[in-house]
Formats: sequence, structure tokens, C-alpha cells
Amino acid sequence: MTGAGEDFEAARLTVRLGAIVANYRTYCRMTGPCAVAAVVKADAYGMGAAAVAPALAGAGCDTFFVARLAEGVALRGILPQARIIVLDGAQADAVPALLTHRLIPALNSLSDIAAWSAAANAARTTLDAVIHVDTGMNRLGLAADELAILSGQSAARLSGLNIVLVMSHLACGDEASPMNAQQLSRFKQALAMLPPAPASLAASHGAFLGMEYHFDLVRPGVALYGANPQNTAQNLMQPVAILTGKVLQIRGIDTGDSVGYAATFRAKRPTMLATVALGYADGIPRTLSNTGAAAIAGGRAPIVGRVSMDLITLDVTGIDVAPGDEAELLGDTVSLSEVAAAAGTNEYEILTRLRRMPRVYEGRAGQTT
Amino acid sequence: MTGAGEDFEAARLTVRLGAIVANYRTYCRMTGPCAVAAVVKADAYGMGAAAVAPALAGAGCDTFFVARLAEGVALRGILPQARIIVLDGAQADAVPALLTHRLIPALNSLSDIAAWSAAANAARTTLDAVIHVDTGMNRLGLAADELAILSGQSAARLSGLNIVLVMSHLACGDEASPMNAQQLSRFKQALAMLPPAPASLAASHGAFLGMEYHFDLVRPGVALYGANPQNTAQNLMQPVAILTGKVLQIRGIDTGDSVGYAATFRAKRPTMLATVALGYADGIPRTLSNTGAAAIAGGRAPIVGRVSMDLITLDVTGIDVAPGDEAELLGDTVSLSEVAAAAGTNEYEILTRLRRMPRVYEGRAGQTT
Repeated sequence: MTGAGEDFEAARLTVRLGAIVANYRTYCRMTGPCAVAAVVKADAYGMGAAAVAPALAGAGCDTFFVARLAEGVALRGILPQARIIVLDGAQADAVPALLTHRLIPALNSLSDIAAWSAAANAARTTLDAVIHVDTGMNRLGLAADELAILSGQSAARLSGLNIVLVMSHLACGDEASPMNAQQLSRFKQALAMLPPAPASLAASHGAFLGMEYHFDLVRPGVALYGANPQNTAQNLMQPVAILTGKVLQIRGIDTGDSVGYAATFRAKRPTMLATVALGYADGIPRTLSNTGAAAIAGGRAPIVGRVSMDLITLDVTGIDVAPGDEAELLGDTVSLSEVAAAAGTNEYEILTRLRRMPRVYEGRAGQTT
Repeated sequence: MTGAGEDFEAARLTVRLGAIVANYRTYCRMTGPCAVAAVVKADAYGMGAAAVAPALAGAGCDTFFVARLAEGVALRGILPQARIIVLDGAQADAVPALLTHRLIPALNSLSDIAAWSAAANAARTTLDAVIHVDTGMNRLGLAADELAILSGQSAARLSGLNIVLVMSHLACGDEASPMNAQQLSRFKQALAMLPPAPASLAASHGAFLGMEYHFDLVRPGVALYGANPQNTAQNLMQPVAILTGKVLQIRGIDTGDSVGYAATFRAKRPTMLATVALGYADGIPRTLSNTGAAAIAGGRAPIVGRVSMDLITLDVTGIDVAPGDEAELLGDTVSLSEVAAAAGTNEYEILTRLRRMPRVYEGRAGQTT
């Protein structure tokens, strides 16, 4: 791939770093005096961690969550001083790289705890650690039986470890589910069973469930990148990802003519089509076939026919469109939540698919990658 | 991201370059004496063009198709001598980069033809060109009215151009549709209207429609990467993409316990769960929630609960699984066609989503990237 900003690029993702910072500050205002970390896993939800993380650090964020160890290693090269927490844990084969790159594992099991404590003791040092307790996701984190064992033997099992955070994760934080209160209650019980330490339960959505979910640190992820953390209210977040593609060709077709693979669209009237340089390899879900829409030349144009790998076809009848015009498939007009709903998925999956895109970073000098 | 092969990587895509070459040779055998080009757009359908294209060149492939101009520029840096055809065309702002990097545009419209011919004449040279005629996709390529104009004025309009290929693309090449014969007929009519030149109609599936679809060049894409080009027959292609993730944690849950976001799975019996380091940011479609399966430790384990961004949860009850074991989500056991069907999409979209993955290239020395 060539660098961003080449004028021959037919499609582009614009990432508004200023909007990410503004969204981060919205969380700081809302949850203060609680600390606000940033989740930048999955390459900052597809937006590019190498540009996003420094922008957030510049806004005062000093704690970052990643999923994979490899993501943590890469982020350490970008942020030499930040606190970087690796959610995947501390399996024995991960320990050397965690140490080398000064990463803090989220310890998900007694086995993770044993591996990390052994590393501390072998080095005759104290290592920072996060304890992740499961309160109902049944995905990662200490199960209730493991927590009971740890509670009874915490001095021995946590030998050499400085617990900087005890965390858990909500399964239904984006809805008004009784499971939220249940997980909150279990989390408080878990905290009471462990040595005193800062605590964190809420991610993007959970922070809006009320102050009792905030504890010492909230850790927004998807909302930083523009998703609405309150499904039933106006979006307080600013749009971050602007996905545009150029019109490659315009053509008129007649009533009855078909469009695209498997001829799934047939024109009911003489129709003007615009073929745009964006497809599912660029992250336009194939489920938007004959369903999604684009903003173009001041109008709104439905996607007709199947989304193909590199191209989509819009019905631009009645809109004054020319080759070279840009169509917005995601942005200020076609919102992230609209695209997710039309595609039958969530905002997270839409964002994390935007990976091939050449990209331009707005709002911070010197951070174009 | 760190390089491939780090032992702490929790998930990995293995790309079998030898299988890609074998699949290419299957097309050569089947279609000979016809030439066989390779479609490597969308970063070789997610497999990594920087490794794939040299492997194919080593097997004798000298013509490569890409979609975007930027893809062509990148490929030129890798293959200095190959013939590289850019499907997006030759809009005026693309011409300088096409010239600089010796790329051949697929001319999709009279406007593309005019821009490229003007470039040839301005440089007092002859430029290679591909003419793309539309025969029913209504996506890219000369429409019938444009073809008629070109036919009547071909000497003037093609001034300075050396037509190395006239191509079109089938809309329903993967099914027994009457549209195939219709497009074949239209393509032959188009060829008769243009100066003599080599011709190409068939991609992966079209090559199996019979010799009359072969013309001078076939251009397989998705089948090179392991997809079945014959929906109703055994797959003659070798699997290429092997997607594996490590088990991060094992836990037992009780009857009635829920798993994952929105608690969409509830255990009907005591259940052993394995949480695996792969999620939709890695290309596991979220539509596989409670639907897909993995091969692990000699068994087959269903995905239970929602696919999340970085993790999936498998029901491994009755399978002897330990943390660190690898689960295959795509490969020799869980086939590409099975995954596509379970996810409700096609094989192409599955492949092109495998973009975050650290990867290992098998079968060619010195090409790990």
C-alpha cells in the first residue's frame, strides 16, 4: 500500500483524532474523579493504534488496554511510558515478552497468577498485575471457585505482585438487563475477597449505567471511536470514522436490467447507476447488498445489487453525480449506528473491518501513518 | 504488530503458498493452451500479495490483476517485470501514477479511453491497454452505447494504444444461469466490433463453464486461495488459509449459566468451555455466533455465545483440551465453504476479512513477511 494522501487513491478512511480526544474528554467529565483508561485493542478498533494512542496520551490518558500480547509489544514502541494492560493474560509462554516490554497482564486464572508471581519471584522484584474476575461473561477471568481459592491464599499466591487493578466485564452493559445489577453485586463480593486495590467494571456502555458502576477507573473503547454508548438516547459521541470512495463510472440502465453478481437487483424504471470504489474487502459488509445507502452530491443513494469485493453500485437517479465524486458510506450523514443496523451487526464489527483503507488522520500534526 | 513466527502469538493465519501454486497449475492444466493470469486484488484476497504474487510469478504467471491503483503501485515494487492490470480504470487523476509505475489500466469507459490515449499521444509513445466491456454486470466496463461509438471510431479513439486484452466479467459464473450464455454471446459480439486482440471472459468459476468461455486468458482469483470453483462438485483446489487461535482459558459452567455478550447461550447441561484468542476483529464473522464450529484436539467444538471482538468461546465438553491448545477455525477440517455457509456469506468475504492476523507463509523460503 502507498502512504495516505496520494491523490490517486480511490477510497479512503478519514480518522478524526480530534473527535476521539473529544469523546475521551466526555468520559472524563462524566465520570470524574474516576480515572479514564482507553481500550485500543484490535488496532484501536480499526482506526490505527499508532496514531490514536499518542493522541489520547496527549489528552492525558495514561492507561491503555489491548487484547493481544503482540498489540502490547507494538504499543510499547509507540508509548514508552504508558501503563499497558494485556487482556489475553499471562500464559507461561507469554511471560518473557510481557517482561521485556513492561506490559501488565490481566491475570485471568490461577494459572496466569502462578506464572506471573513466579516471574516476579525469579527476578526478585515486584511486578504490576491486574486481576480479572469473571462475574457472568464466562469468557475470561477468574471463576468463582478460583476466586475462593485465591481469597484464602492471597498472600502466598500473589507473592511478588502489586495489584494495580481488579477488573470485571459486563455481559449486557448495553441494555437494561437485570444481569447488570447481578454482576455489580458479584463484583463487590469479589473485591471484598481480595486485598484492597483500585477497581474497574465499566466499559463504554457500563459507564452510563450510573456512578455505582464507575469504581476507580472506567475503560471506554468503542464509544471513543464514535459508537453510541446509550442505545436509547442521542449519541453524545462525535463521529470519528469517515469512509469515502470515488465514483469510477456512471451508467444508465433500462427497466428490467439487472445489476451485479447473481443479478439480485432489477431496475423497475430507467435508472442511473454510480459504481463506487469500495467493497467488502474494504469493510463494507456484504449484508448491505440491496440494503445500505450512501450520501453523495447532496443526496442519498441506495446500494443496489450485491456488494462485491472492491465495488458497490448506487442508484443515483435524480442526483447530479459525476465520475470522481466521493460517496460517503460512513460518516456524518450515514451514521455508524445506521450502518450497523442495516448490516445486521453491531458498531464494533463495522469499525474493526475498516482495515485495508488508506487513511488520513485529521486533527493532529505529524501523526499521519 | 510484530513479525510472524513469534512464539507468543495467540492467533495465526498460515498461508500455504505451495497450495496457491498448485491451484494455479490446476488452472493451467485445465485451460491450456490458454494463458492463466492471477487476480491478486484486495491484498491477494487477504492472503498477502507481497508473498503470494512472487510465488505465482515463480510458477510462471506473468499477468496479475489488481483493483486499486494503489495495489498496482505496491505490486510493481515487488514484481518489476510482470504485466499488472488495474481494474479500477484510468480516470484522469490516475494517469500519472499508471505511467510512472508501468501499470496497464482496464479502460472501463470512453472517458477512460480518452484519458489513456491522450497520455500516449502526449508522450509520443504507444501504451498497453485493456478494454473492459460490460456484458451484463452493470458495474464497470463499456456500456453497449459506448461500445457502438468506439466501434465506429476505433482508429481515432484508440490512437496510441496497444490493446493487449479485451475482457468482460460474468455476473452468474458460479451457477447454471441462462445469463452465462447471454453474456458469452454479447462478449463475442463485442469482440467482433473491436480490432482483433486477445480476449478474456472467465474468472475462477467461469473457467469451469466449458472451453468456449476460455478465450485467450482465464483469470482465476478466489479459487487460487482455496475456494471451490464448482459449487456442485468436489473441490479440486487445495486449502490455502489455515486460521488457528490458542485456548486462553478453560472453565466449567453449570446448567443454566450463560455465556458471552447478551447472554445468548445458556448451558443445558454442565459444560466445559474453552475461550480462544480469535474474534471478529480477526475476521471471524459475528454471524457465526452460536453457529460455527472449530476443530480442536481431535474433536469438533461448536461456538457458543456471541463471537466477540477478540475472543470466541467453544463448547469442548468431552474433548480433552488444555490452555495453549490450538483451535482451527478455518483449514483442512473446517473448510472455507463450510465457514462461508455457516456465516451466511461467500468464501470471498471470509478470506478478505483475515487481515489482522499475524501470518506464516509455508512453502517458499525467504518470503515470510
